[in-house]
Amino acid sequence: MTWAATVLTVLPEMFPGPLGLSLCGKALAEERWSFETIDIRKFATTRYGSVDDTPAGGGPGMVMRADILASAIDSVDRRDRPLVLLSPRGVPLTQARARELAAGPGAVLVCGRFEGVDQRVIDARGMQEISVGDYVLSGGELPAMILIDAVARLLPGVVGADASLDEESFEHGLLEYPHYTRPHSWEGREIPAVLTSGHHQRIREWRRAQSHELTKSRRPDLWDAHRRRTGAASTKT
Amino acid sequence: MTWAATVLTVLPEMFPGPLGLSLCGKALAEERWSFETIDIRKFATTRYGSVDDTPAGGGPGMVMRADILASAIDSVDRRDRPLVLLSPRGVPLTQARARELAAGPGAVLVCGRFEGVDQRVIDARGMQEISVGDYVLSGGELPAMILIDAVARLLPGVVGADASLDEESFEHGLLEYPHYTRPHSWEGREIPAVLTSGHHQRIREWRRAQSHELTKSRRPDLWDAHRRRTGAASTKT
Repeated sequence: MTWAATVLTVLPEMFPGPLGLSLCGKALAEERWSFETIDIRKFATTRYGSVDDTPAGGGPGMVMRADILASAIDSVDRRDRPLVLLSPRGVPLTQARARELAAGPGAVLVCGRFEGVDQRVIDARGMQEISVGDYVLSGGELPAMILIDAVARLLPGVVGADASLDEESFEHGLLEYPHYTRPHSWEGREIPAVLTSGHHQRIREWRRAQSHELTKSRRPDLWDAHRRRTGAASTKT
Repeated sequence: MTWAATVLTVLPEMFPGPLGLSLCGKALAEERWSFETIDIRKFATTRYGSVDDTPAGGGPGMVMRADILASAIDSVDRRDRPLVLLSPRGVPLTQARARELAAGPGAVLVCGRFEGVDQRVIDARGMQEISVGDYVLSGGELPAMILIDAVARLLPGVVGADASLDEESFEHGLLEYPHYTRPHSWEGREIPAVLTSGHHQRIREWRRAQSHELTKSRRPDLWDAHRRRTGAASTKT
């Protein structure tokens, strides 16, 4: 089963864009995932093709119309795929959510533009709002690409070594330990001796300690969540 | 002064990509921001052009070499621009950080690939690590685009109405209120009466209450931070 993304956008020419290259592009060529774009403008009802209008109650910007977006959504064969609106008002995308999506048949992704989307179509069509971060972008297209990239690399066969997925940031709720590679000495800086010691247990312990230290100092929010999940044991293991 | 982005990547063909279209593309054409890419592979020292090697201490994946990445970084005229590594281990990108970056001369952005980057070059060159969210991607290219998009729309003259920037999500640490536009009635759903009442004060109050409710229910973390910042007054205003 190919993981299927349908992207509703006013900028279909942005896709596949970066997703057509490198890891995602190779996986796309191998049909490990697929995508189609739906041009929301094709569902405009005026001869000017506008899909937005001024906000009720006043204010800056333009709002995407409920009727036009609903027509675009209703044209899609959703099957069992979740309908997602990329929006800064959404719940944050996490690695766990990417894993859930990767385990499903795909996603129907709606890219907002302008000031926002009429709330009635969000409610009436039961859209999940997902945010890729606490910042505002010019539209939902880059967030849709982020979501697809996060999911695509989790699909079977896309990343060579499955172990590579298990040790990375967030898989255990912690930031990843630092990496080193050749040359052994560079600008007077050496690779930490433990890493070249050949003692696998000590290497594991060193990496875990580094991962804990980094998470504690840089992401106290993740560290607190990790502590709550694992109890006091987390300080010892 | 044009805001200048220099992007170091092994995939220069990804740029400008989505940034060449729509709002960012128009601002690029108007020279409100500029970009150049530096192909890290050009600094490879082997005839195969490889820029990575196996991780010291073992483990899956490949690590970008310190010496090669440092050569690429040292080839850039940084001027006063911050040197940023896009990495899931970084501090989270926020709207406030995007504003800070927009107020400066630009940024030198390093896109990680593979398992990670040798820690010594991060330390030796004083790289700031910035994360766009708590998920793992196939590389730092989409995050670099996200950062540039978040910044570019804050540059003078890029978004038409400056007021549009002031009311949106995160500018006051809260999620934005819901939007509505024509048609007035759609699928039996009406625009909330207050928004068509013409009472500007009531509209403001309704929007603020909606914004508070949404933030409270969907992002208790942001709500707590907002409460701490504004004190008890936040429940009344």
